[in-house]
Amino acid sequence: MEIHIALGAHSYDIILQRGCLSQAGKLLQLERRVLLVTDDGVPQAYADAVAKQCLAPEIVTIPQGEASKSLASFERLLSHMLQSGFTRKDCVIAVGGGVVGDLAGFAAASFMRGIDFYNIPTTVLSQVDSSIGGKNAVNLNGVKNVVGAFYQPKRVLIDPDVLDTLPARQRVNGLAESVKMALTSDPALFEIFEAQDPDETLENIIYRSLLIKKGVVEQDERETGLRRVLNYGHTIGHGLESPAAGTGLYHGESVALGMLPFCSDDVRLRLLQVLKKLGLPTDADFDADAAMEAIIHDKKGVSNGVDVVFVPKIGSYTFRFLSFSAIQAAMETLKRRTS
Amino acid sequence: MEIHIALGAHSYDIILQRGCLSQAGKLLQLERRVLLVTDDGVPQAYADAVAKQCLAPEIVTIPQGEASKSLASFERLLSHMLQSGFTRKDCVIAVGGGVVGDLAGFAAASFMRGIDFYNIPTTVLSQVDSSIGGKNAVNLNGVKNVVGAFYQPKRVLIDPDVLDTLPARQRVNGLAESVKMALTSDPALFEIFEAQDPDETLENIIYRSLLIKKGVVEQDERETGLRRVLNYGHTIGHGLESPAAGTGLYHGESVALGMLPFCSDDVRLRLLQVLKKLGLPTDADFDADAAMEAIIHDKKGVSNGVDVVFVPKIGSYTFRFLSFSAIQAAMETLKRRTS
Repeated sequence: MEIHIALGAHSYDIILQRGCLSQAGKLLQLERRVLLVTDDGVPQAYADAVAKQCLAPEIVTIPQGEASKSLASFERLLSHMLQSGFTRKDCVIAVGGGVVGDLAGFAAASFMRGIDFYNIPTTVLSQVDSSIGGKNAVNLNGVKNVVGAFYQPKRVLIDPDVLDTLPARQRVNGLAESVKMALTSDPALFEIFEAQDPDETLENIIYRSLLIKKGVVEQDERETGLRRVLNYGHTIGHGLESPAAGTGLYHGESVALGMLPFCSDDVRLRLLQVLKKLGLPTDADFDADAAMEAIIHDKKGVSNGVDVVFVPKIGSYTFRFLSFSAIQAAMETLKRRTS
Repeated sequence: MEIHIALGAHSYDIILQRGCLSQAGKLLQLERRVLLVTDDGVPQAYADAVAKQCLAPEIVTIPQGEASKSLASFERLLSHMLQSGFTRKDCVIAVGGGVVGDLAGFAAASFMRGIDFYNIPTTVLSQVDSSIGGKNAVNLNGVKNVVGAFYQPKRVLIDPDVLDTLPARQRVNGLAESVKMALTSDPALFEIFEAQDPDETLENIIYRSLLIKKGVVEQDERETGLRRVLNYGHTIGHGLESPAAGTGLYHGESVALGMLPFCSDDVRLRLLQVLKKLGLPTDADFDADAAMEAIIHDKKGVSNGVDVVFVPKIGSYTFRFLSFSAIQAAMETLKRRTS
């Protein structure tokens, strides 16, 4: 399946197809120097499979984890391209999850003021969400995504086969972003989560999620308005996933929790069922003050509260301004009760 | 005078007006956090004059010179903004020459994926050329401008009064870029250089140069074709200005020399007269092999030669493919004869 993302001169296609990794040589323009960026948590076979189809591949494997989203890694990729004689006509491919995509995309955006970038996401989270939209970035001084660019890929290859090697917890973590999009924008997708086995309908879930994201990104490439709907669950989510909060939760798991306080009671009941079915958390132990500090730090410059996305009915949303104390109160409802 | 640069969503105005530095508070939106970037070769009074008109100014003064166009300086600016609580709604202003503009522009482009950038160029070179067009960058591992972005300013303030403090050699160095644009695109501007005292008609020279650059940039924002006309004189120029070549020449001076081999005999005669009148070099001592190495390194990835701009008649140009040996032969004609 092909999904066209219409962004004028920045338009591109997403190819969603089982086995497309082994078709990269036909689907991408690889008759040139290619920097393949992957991490040591991704099976090496994936980058190798793409490299075999390139005229002049260079594989750079970064350490898995958020610490690799740094200006130091950014410089490493740029230096590597420089030393290998890359020109404006060469390209970068990310083979991995969100960290790899964000870092490689920013390097592609900046090398000689921008060379072609392809993304081959290998996690559910990056396949349904982070590989499209053109947001890339690295962290600085502990602040996430503060240095980066809006830079669209030339093409995205999504091969659901690569998810077979993904640990179960990582798969489910990614589905949380898809549940999020269903809640705000696609009741039929939410019903799929309710009625079907997500493992058996994964390709359809990815497809429908991509269509939602396409609609949002096309209307708001640079996140000046509408695109904020994608932040549903993320205000509290950011707090809960911060190391200081001590939850040990992944991003998607934190977002799953972050959605619960900001919907109507009816929606919450159905959401709780889906989260339990998927194996996503519905409560957690955490240090609420530390989580709140992370939220306020993230929204630095903002006076006393923020707009959060609220879902009154599945498939719809509104924005509500909440004070930081109201957000903290909402977060407290997520605390695990010891019975 | 206002010059509108029409680039769709990236459009902006250039204000060319004596004394506009002291009007910055009216001409720019300074009721927010403002990072003012300048260097220690620019009179501190200029950044101070702008800072006085800002609600919350932060001045960062970098060391003068090309070495400041580095990822380390880039990180320094970003960290400074982060520590001062900058948000997406704050802005960066460059007050200086090309180095300051290129560095500050890239920092503005990258902070939170892009915040407002204003440019207040304080050299002839940056006023007629580098402050418009949206090209910004830093150097890496000795290679110029290899990491950067196309990112347009929100507004450019050009105050010819600030040029009064510029050393004569720097003024003339900047005029070389203006002579270059006249040769390819504006016979009337070239006649001004021939017939008038450039010091007395400087504002008009800047204005006409900006109109030429406007035309080129509007047609080719991302330098995929036409914009290469601006590279007239720059192939050999890059070689001659490389430290290894040993000329000790500035950028504009090197470009002045670089134009001489690539025009008809008629044009060359008139160009020589103008260069002499302005006090720009017409020959130089240099290490031709080292200069050639810099040129080839700069064009890395290209097989055996490059397209150079050639001016058959003032106000027109063509592209000619020349082998590296032909370029070296052309460069040799610029060697100073000891008589």
